[in-house]
Amino acid sequence: MSALLGLNYIGGTRSGAGEVLLHSLDATTGEALPGAFRQATAAEVDAAARAAEAAYPSYRQLSALRRAEFLDAIAAELDALGEDFIATVCRETALPAARIQGERGRTSGQLRLFAQVLRRGDFHGARIDRAQPQRQPLPRPDLRQCQLGLGPVAVFGASNFPLAFSTAGGDTAAALAAGCTVVFKAHSGHMATSEWVADAILRAAEQTGMPQGVFNMVYGGGVGEWLVKHPAIQAVGFTGSLKGGRALCDMAAARPQPIPVFAEMSSINPVILLPEALATRGEQVAGELAASVVLGCGQFCTNPGLVIGMRSPAFSAFIEQFAARMADQPTQTMLNAGTLKSYVAGLTRLHAHPGIRHLAGQPQQGNQAQPQLFQADVGLLLEGDELLQEEVFGPTTVLVEVADLAQLRQALNSLHGQLTATLIAEPGDLASATTLLPLLEQKVGRLLLNGYPTGVEVCDAMVHGGPYPATSDARGTSVGSLAIARFQRPVCYQNLPDALLPAALQNANPLGIQRLVDGVNTREALD
Amino acid sequence: MSALLGLNYIGGTRSGAGEVLLHSLDATTGEALPGAFRQATAAEVDAAARAAEAAYPSYRQLSALRRAEFLDAIAAELDALGEDFIATVCRETALPAARIQGERGRTSGQLRLFAQVLRRGDFHGARIDRAQPQRQPLPRPDLRQCQLGLGPVAVFGASNFPLAFSTAGGDTAAALAAGCTVVFKAHSGHMATSEWVADAILRAAEQTGMPQGVFNMVYGGGVGEWLVKHPAIQAVGFTGSLKGGRALCDMAAARPQPIPVFAEMSSINPVILLPEALATRGEQVAGELAASVVLGCGQFCTNPGLVIGMRSPAFSAFIEQFAARMADQPTQTMLNAGTLKSYVAGLTRLHAHPGIRHLAGQPQQGNQAQPQLFQADVGLLLEGDELLQEEVFGPTTVLVEVADLAQLRQALNSLHGQLTATLIAEPGDLASATTLLPLLEQKVGRLLLNGYPTGVEVCDAMVHGGPYPATSDARGTSVGSLAIARFQRPVCYQNLPDALLPAALQNANPLGIQRLVDGVNTREALD
Repeated sequence: MSALLGLNYIGGTRSGAGEVLLHSLDATTGEALPGAFRQATAAEVDAAARAAEAAYPSYRQLSALRRAEFLDAIAAELDALGEDFIATVCRETALPAARIQGERGRTSGQLRLFAQVLRRGDFHGARIDRAQPQRQPLPRPDLRQCQLGLGPVAVFGASNFPLAFSTAGGDTAAALAAGCTVVFKAHSGHMATSEWVADAILRAAEQTGMPQGVFNMVYGGGVGEWLVKHPAIQAVGFTGSLKGGRALCDMAAARPQPIPVFAEMSSINPVILLPEALATRGEQVAGELAASVVLGCGQFCTNPGLVIGMRSPAFSAFIEQFAARMADQPTQTMLNAGTLKSYVAGLTRLHAHPGIRHLAGQPQQGNQAQPQLFQADVGLLLEGDELLQEEVFGPTTVLVEVADLAQLRQALNSLHGQLTATLIAEPGDLASATTLLPLLEQKVGRLLLNGYPTGVEVCDAMVHGGPYPATSDARGTSVGSLAIARFQRPVCYQNLPDALLPAALQNANPLGIQRLVDGVNTREALD
Repeated sequence: MSALLGLNYIGGTRSGAGEVLLHSLDATTGEALPGAFRQATAAEVDAAARAAEAAYPSYRQLSALRRAEFLDAIAAELDALGEDFIATVCRETALPAARIQGERGRTSGQLRLFAQVLRRGDFHGARIDRAQPQRQPLPRPDLRQCQLGLGPVAVFGASNFPLAFSTAGGDTAAALAAGCTVVFKAHSGHMATSEWVADAILRAAEQTGMPQGVFNMVYGGGVGEWLVKHPAIQAVGFTGSLKGGRALCDMAAARPQPIPVFAEMSSINPVILLPEALATRGEQVAGELAASVVLGCGQFCTNPGLVIGMRSPAFSAFIEQFAARMADQPTQTMLNAGTLKSYVAGLTRLHAHPGIRHLAGQPQQGNQAQPQLFQADVGLLLEGDELLQEEVFGPTTVLVEVADLAQLRQALNSLHGQLTATLIAEPGDLASATTLLPLLEQKVGRLLLNGYPTGVEVCDAMVHGGPYPATSDARGTSVGSLAIARFQRPVCYQNLPDALLPAALQNANPLGIQRLVDGVNTREALD
């Protein structure tokens, strides 16, 4: 890309009808970067949604293999972006180049995983119940079911993953894989990055012959509301704050035609330290956990925000070791000034609470985030104090000491829904772990043993989801191949001749996929 | 059962703390039947939800085979109910005994289908991505995913299927299969029927050793709101009116913790008559279609409420034949006085509309429903006139004549979401049908060729769902085995030792189910 145009992407063309100019900032210096972005007007948002609506019928009818080619082409275009691109992302987010290189690989890998899902074909959900003309008292008709894309999807980019949860990130990839077209709302924190990636998507669309309007992108602050309320939009993907996500959910639910929203929002990701693990390797855990808390300046949805241990000399020793490690952590630059402001506000609330003590961390000041450690009375958890349930986005965590296993269970019971929960345990702890697991799995999308929740593998088995407020709908995941299911719905065909059926359901099984035929999973063709 | 107690079912006991007495009516005479039902108090609804919450942890941890035994036992108990039971249902609903016998078989068959799904095991959604300790730059942990029940589910009984969409109907069966406990809100139109069935469920629960509180039932008018707003309730299943369903959706979305609602609501189920079919067998279609319109007094969600044909001598002839058939149809008693009142109001609105003409049917009067036929100007469809999109629940339908295929496409485009759409076609019509299918499949949950939408097969491939307002969430179905997915969510286990994993995910594959292992579907055990 030679220069930023700063125009909205609508149906394969660029549009800048509005007067409001937006500037992307250098995340480290706060200075405006060269170039400007035109905030989309209401008419442009409408045009983008209409372009996605117009492209949907032809896009969804492309074969899964064609869609896979498109996703692979996006991945290749992303991987081919050069150092200029990496430098742009680093400037806009203050994230280091190695992280951005890694995140780019994760993002293209994610696109390729969905391409693989499309080729594997189980996403079709093909089910066939053959006619039984002789059945008494009534014959059974021929019934065949497969999954269809919901329609145009509005995707909101996240601040903390400028690539993996943004323009060509997991929501976009899942929606495109499902056969949905996309209108992407660029995050104000990385508009130049979004333009680089949108250009890559459009080049891939052109190479693979996708319809104009398969992907659209708009810039601006208030434009998200227009998008969610637009009648052409049939689903929403969002990663961000509880306040922002809930507002979108409320808008979507209040539409004349309500639409599903998958919003990944707020999680404090409890880490539970069991006694034998602390006794055996408390100091090691202190180091590993501190690294997880400050990783990426704590700007991860799965950042461990609550650490619970049982009263014991080993836990007391751990607290000291952990406090020392946290006190050692350097300051880091946050994604943008707004993130830092929120972090400062979160710390202020923790400092002000009479039931919470500050254990480690230099006073928060200046333009960088200072890692902090707090300890809260267990009563706060037991009473459901809201402050303890709130995610403080940044490099801080809260310790809680419980009296025993019974109180631990009580404390965990009072937690809201979470993306993750982690048990740190040695073999001698497994009896306790066994009693905790059923409780924890009711609270979370992912349960870890002896790992740290930061680091979300992109694969078939991943769940990056969980009960509210971790997400708005626990039935979904925004990472991993199951993410496609959020944007699909089943359709049933009754007594259609073979030629009129989707390929996934035709007798000859031309896609060679596995299907549930008369209750049996098989890849065989039908007579 | 010897006598009706008329008390609410809470945690395996019966409770009648309230003062409000409800009476079930003879649907034919309008007279109160012997006995009375105690409307649940707020405290009783709370107790019922708490009982479901208390039973959930132990119920969900039962093996799928144990849950299958429970469903099979309910089916056997239902099938064993005698003539007294059938007579009770007939009295409360005015439905004929043969229909009730058939619906009972459908209901027990539905329970057995879910038992079969539980034994087949694909509902677990088992996915395993094995650890890759040598992977660079970072090792991959062991990740395993399966599906878990959402938690206690509130189910609302439907008026029109006192068995199949009621106490032990599809929503209850799907929720119980998913590992969810249930609080059922009995429909006021068949409270005695509900008591018979609830007793059958409790006998089955006792026989198979289910926890107290696995199934609870409350009576009363305003109690549904308490139920949907109760913090223990994690999902809602509903079949009924658009107004009622939307109200529940709005309540659920406004909760501090929003919960998913699957509401099956309003559909006019367009039937499109293509020219060659009319020319070849117009008179036959007229007879079959009239039978579908008046089947069960038109009290089916899939009742054909809109019939569209293209202007031609054959369609004109069809209109005459169809009008004659509709004029011949006898009156029938509706489910209850409220249903008749709604039907009369719907007819009044159709009669009053200047763009709609009455073609056949005696004046509506008395205590029975008189079948009616109307014809509307195509302009009403093209302009999106709301009256034509509204379901009139009863034995009536509206004809629309379109000029040609292009206008037909326009007319179909203006339709809201539907449960079904039907094409009546001969081989010569298939070229037209091919151009209509992509448009129709965006509008509906089920597409039929040369059948009638009434009659919903219970099987793996069925979709009884569709875009709003047919349902509140097009991603679900309330008939067929996929209905279980509405009440499940995925959970991921990272690095758990084999002994702590759910059986579905253990290395040895003790359930012998199919699993997606490292991207490949297999039934094999892992090393």
